[in-house]
Parts: sequence; structure tokens; C-alpha cells
Amino acid sequence: MASGHTVRESPVVVQPGELSLDAPLPLRRIRHDVDAILNEFLDTQAAKASDSCLPPLVEIIRDFLTGGKRLRPLFCVCGWVAAGGDSDASEVLKVGAALELFHSFALIHDDLMDASDSRRGQPTVHRVLAARADKPGEPAAAEHFGASAAILLGDICMVWSDELLNASGVEPQLLHTARPLIDAMRTEVMAGQYLDVEHADDATSDALERAWRVIRHKTAAYTVIRPIQIGAALTGADETLLQSCVAYGQPIGEAFQLRDDLLGVFGHPSVTGKPALDDLRAGKRTVLMALTWQRASPAQRATIGRLHGNATLDDDGAEQLRDVIRETGADCTVEDMIAARLNKALAALREAPMSVQARRGLAELAETATQRRY
Amino acid sequence: MASGHTVRESPVVVQPGELSLDAPLPLRRIRHDVDAILNEFLDTQAAKASDSCLPPLVEIIRDFLTGGKRLRPLFCVCGWVAAGGDSDASEVLKVGAALELFHSFALIHDDLMDASDSRRGQPTVHRVLAARADKPGEPAAAEHFGASAAILLGDICMVWSDELLNASGVEPQLLHTARPLIDAMRTEVMAGQYLDVEHADDATSDALERAWRVIRHKTAAYTVIRPIQIGAALTGADETLLQSCVAYGQPIGEAFQLRDDLLGVFGHPSVTGKPALDDLRAGKRTVLMALTWQRASPAQRATIGRLHGNATLDDDGAEQLRDVIRETGADCTVEDMIAARLNKALAALREAPMSVQARRGLAELAETATQRRY
Repeated sequence: MASGHTVRESPVVVQPGELSLDAPLPLRRIRHDVDAILNEFLDTQAAKASDSCLPPLVEIIRDFLTGGKRLRPLFCVCGWVAAGGDSDASEVLKVGAALELFHSFALIHDDLMDASDSRRGQPTVHRVLAARADKPGEPAAAEHFGASAAILLGDICMVWSDELLNASGVEPQLLHTARPLIDAMRTEVMAGQYLDVEHADDATSDALERAWRVIRHKTAAYTVIRPIQIGAALTGADETLLQSCVAYGQPIGEAFQLRDDLLGVFGHPSVTGKPALDDLRAGKRTVLMALTWQRASPAQRATIGRLHGNATLDDDGAEQLRDVIRETGADCTVEDMIAARLNKALAALREAPMSVQARRGLAELAETATQRRY
Repeated sequence: MASGHTVRESPVVVQPGELSLDAPLPLRRIRHDVDAILNEFLDTQAAKASDSCLPPLVEIIRDFLTGGKRLRPLFCVCGWVAAGGDSDASEVLKVGAALELFHSFALIHDDLMDASDSRRGQPTVHRVLAARADKPGEPAAAEHFGASAAILLGDICMVWSDELLNASGVEPQLLHTARPLIDAMRTEVMAGQYLDVEHADDATSDALERAWRVIRHKTAAYTVIRPIQIGAALTGADETLLQSCVAYGQPIGEAFQLRDDLLGVFGHPSVTGKPALDDLRAGKRTVLMALTWQRASPAQRATIGRLHGNATLDDDGAEQLRDVIRETGADCTVEDMIAARLNKALAALREAPMSVQARRGLAELAETATQRRY
């Protein structure tokens, strides 16, 4: 009887829309819809405040948003679909757009803290604003204006992210249910960034453990687990489904950051949109560098000590650092870590209580997040 | 019949609680309750994240919150009472506490942008954090850490303010109704601050108009009108009541800022908690200074040009600037402006469709906000 039941249900009795459960998730269309929502929202904000200083700032936010990977909105929609929602529901697309705006806030402030000059192939927001300051011959004043205005622009992105979230049209009770996940995501990313800032130039023995802590707070939860869980919770996911988001999201989040660290050192600036020296000059405390240091000889450690985190590092020095990393084999170890995590996530996905469509979407995003070149 | 009706209802037939409508609003008790909620909320946040870097940061936020005037929570409770709510309802007290946390976020970021060294008699947050940086002999690195960590601490206050607001227990539909007011408040204060940052050192002819714009955005709406309106909307106020908040709040908000500007120049640091030279060194673009400049002779303008906004200003220089202000009579004009606005607000209050208790509370706060010495 059980077997007869299975045969009768699939694929003979087709309910309206049921076929689409096996169709691939239209990630490109979702990305496009999220962009359209962001643009429309920014138009509205500019129009509401047309008599204030905001319209030109809105255009800076719009430029900054161009070219993002939209990973968080995509993960959020996957979570929503995994819990039974439709991938073209305007509520979840708006929530995804709100997550992207929140991410802009985080990036604008991070770039300022890291003193980064460019992102996504464009100057960072504090540099754009400093260049617009009307202070000829006063570079310190222009830089201070750029920093102050970037703090405010980030703040505006956060506040507007919240406005977009609350106006998403998600049923208030479901939004209320998802609040603890949203609150946790916001606090986690800031705690992670604080850890990052606190020990920015520490390259000693417990650096590896700290690098993993930063990854877990700042990336794994923030970039992958929470967005999926939020999407799922907003359409009424149960605890089992929320836990399966962790089994997939934890390894993918970690692998995403490990890839980011490799690209920060070995990526091509024309593809990554970031200068090849930024991470090395900033002395970014990554798993890659912590592993390298652990395995390095005294002479190699001296090279790291002299060059990593050296603000005047040039191309030759960067190549010396890359040589040390390669010589220790840390880059290959990190590649292996990424592959292991990708496999672990895909295995978790096969067990996850989700529709085929959600699983296919998450599998595709797993590849995008970990095998990317930018 | 109408007159008989009136006589029978008041004061002969007393409903339970009715007498309290004429009692003064217990502002001190409200302030105390808001403080207790803030402390309890911070305890919870520290406990939730006991294994992270957050607990020490929570203590910095707690120290920073000590000594605030709690004007925004008090205005918010007044609005709630004006629309028929009870002053001891935990929902509105939590919303008030959320407004105070939001204010901490705004102040922490503002102090960084203004490069202020102290507030409320204590070092500002970026100074506290810079002093904690473990960078002996590297003042620039310590300062960069202080700035980065202060950006993050402000961000955390904003995010937690939102968490407290959403968990206030206000009925979701009423919270939804009040959202546009909350959104407007947040955007307005940032647009005002941006205007302030954009033209920080401009002391020329249209400075007076710009100073008024900043006051209207950054103070009048943010400090007075919006908190009252939010409190009122959260208990179902109608449009007439919301408009009467403007008739009272606009002049009080303006007078509050004018008083702030006078205290920034003439206040005693032991009372204001702020150094007497900060505003003058920063070249703060106030109505007071714009008026002074308008009325100043060429020689006096030269003095202003040389000393106002001069980061190395000393006590002698400050006294010269104060002399110029007094000689032009700008200080007396600003005192007159404050008095006129206080009268206007109190007159509006007499016409406002509110309970006697709300009116008495707002009248007391009007005095506190405009006649204060700190």
C-alpha cells in the first residue's frame, strides 16, 4: 500500500504549481527582482526628502550597491522556498533587499575601519565622499569629512534596511517570530567585526583560533545561516528545518570566508575589484595567515613580521609573502578545507527536509560562494 | 440638562483612577523606570553573549548612559499619556528606553565626527576605547582603534535600540501605525547631522538659514516632536492630537537647541560636563554664532575668522570670542528667542486636546528643556 501510494502521488497526480518544485530556482531572476526593489526604494527615499541633503547621498548608496553578489537575499529566498514559500513572493524579495541594504551598512563601516581604498572595482564610500569635500589644500579636513559622512551614510543604510524590512508586507506575527534571528544576526556580525578590529595586528600563536571565531561570528552566521533561517522563519519553518540550515550553512559560510581570504592574497584585482595588496597591507588576521605562521621557519616568520601589516608594502614584498604562504603549503591546506566543507554541506543538503527546488538552489549557491573568482 | 450632566459627572462621580488625571506626571519615577529597563536590557545582552567580546562593551554603554537627561523617553511617555495611556505602562517605558539607546548611538557617532573629548563629565566613547587599546607608543594606532570601536559600539546601540523597541510588548498593529514616525525620526536626525558635518566650518552669510535647518532636522523633530508623536501614536492618537504635538514641540525643540548653543559657549564645564572650549574650537555653526557674525564689524569678523573653529584656541581666545558675541548682543537676542518660544509652546499647550496630566508634564519638561544649566 505504501508503494502504491508513492506511485500514485508522483508524478501521476500533478497539483497546480507542483511541477515547479523540481524546477531550478531562478537565481538570476531573484537577483534582478531584488535589484529592482532596491532601486525603487531608493527612488522613494530620494523623493520623500527632495528638499534635504539626502538625494545626492541616495545616489552614492545606489552606486555602492551596484555589482554586489546578492548572496544574502539569495540565501534568504532559498530558506523561504525551503519552508514552502514561492520564490516570486514580493515579501521575501523585500526582506532580501533589506538584508542587502544592511550589508551595505556593514561594508561601508568596515571599509572605513579597514581604511580600504576600493571595493567592487570602485573607490570606497569614505574615499568618494572625501574626494567630494570642498577643502582644496586641506587633505586632513577632506579625510575627516569623508570618514564622518561615511559613518552617516552607513547609518542611513541600516535605518533604511529596517524601514524596508518593516514595510515588506510579511505578516506581523511571522515577522515577530523571525525577530530573534534578525536580532542575533545583527549582533553577531558586529561582535565578529569588533574581534577583527581588536586584534587586527596580532599574528601569534592563538591567531588561528581567533581567526576561526571571527569567521563563525562574522561570516558563517551572518552571510549564510541567518539569511536562510530568516527566510525560512518568515514562512513558518519548524525547528528541524531551522537546524538543517545550520548543517548546510556553517560549512558553506566557513568555506566562503576561506575563499575570500585566498582571493584577498592571490586574486586578480581586475576580477576581484579589490587591490591585490589591501589584505596583506592591513595585516588581515585570516586562517590562511595563521596557518602560514604556525608552519613557518624562524626566517619565514621574520619575513611575515616585517611585511604582513606593513602599510608601505609594495608588489615585491607582497610576492615574498605569497612565496612564504606557498612554501608552507598553507594555500593548498585552505583549498582542501574549502573542498571538505563544500562536500559536507552538499551531504547535509541531501538529508535536509526541503523541496528539491530549495535544495537545488542551495547547491548552486554553495558552488557560487566557494568556487568564485571574485 | 447639559449643565446638570456636567455637575453630576465632575467631581461628584469619581471613577477609579480618574483623580490621577489631574495629578502631576511623575517624571522622576518615569526616569527611574526607564533607567531600570535599560540596565536590565544590558544585563540580558551581556548574559546572552557571555562567551563573546560583548560583555566589556556592554559596560562601556552602561557608563555612557549614566547621567543623561532622558528627555526623549519623558516626551514619549507624555505623548502616550496625552493620548489616554497610563504613565506606568511597561510598553511605553520600554519604547522610551529604546529611544534613549538610539540617542546613545547618535551621540557616540556625533562625538566621533565632532572629535569631542568629553560628554556628561566623562571622556567620550572613542576616547575611552582609544585609552584601552593595547598600543603603547603608537598614538595613531590607538586613535584608529578608538574610532573603529566607537563606530561599532554606536552601531550596536542602534541595533539593540531596535531590538528593545520590537520587544516592547506594544500591540503589533499599533507599532505598525507608528513606524512611519519612527522611520522619519531616524532619517531626519541623520540628514540634520549630515548638514552639520557638510558645512562645519562655514560662517558666512547664509549660515543663519543653515543653522535653523539643522535645528529643525536634528533637534526640534528628533528631540521633541517625534518622541511625543511616537508615544501618542502607540496608544492610538488621532491626527488632531499628532498635530498639536508639533505646535508645542517645534518651539520647544528650537529653544532646547538655542539653550544648548548658549551653554556650549557660556556654560560652566563643571555643570555642563563639557569643556568650555569644545564648541568654539569645533567652530560649531549655531544660530548664536551666525547672528553674531551678521552683526559684527569688520574687525570683529576678523576675530571670529581667526578664532572660531581654531583647534588650538585657548582660554584667552575663547574670552575674546565671548566678548564679540556679547558686544553684538547676540546672546541677549538668543535668550529672547528662547523666552518667546517657551511662551508660544505653553500657549499651544493650553489649546491642546490632552488630559491635564499630560499638559502639566509637558509644561514641566518645557521648562527643563529650555531653562536648564546643563
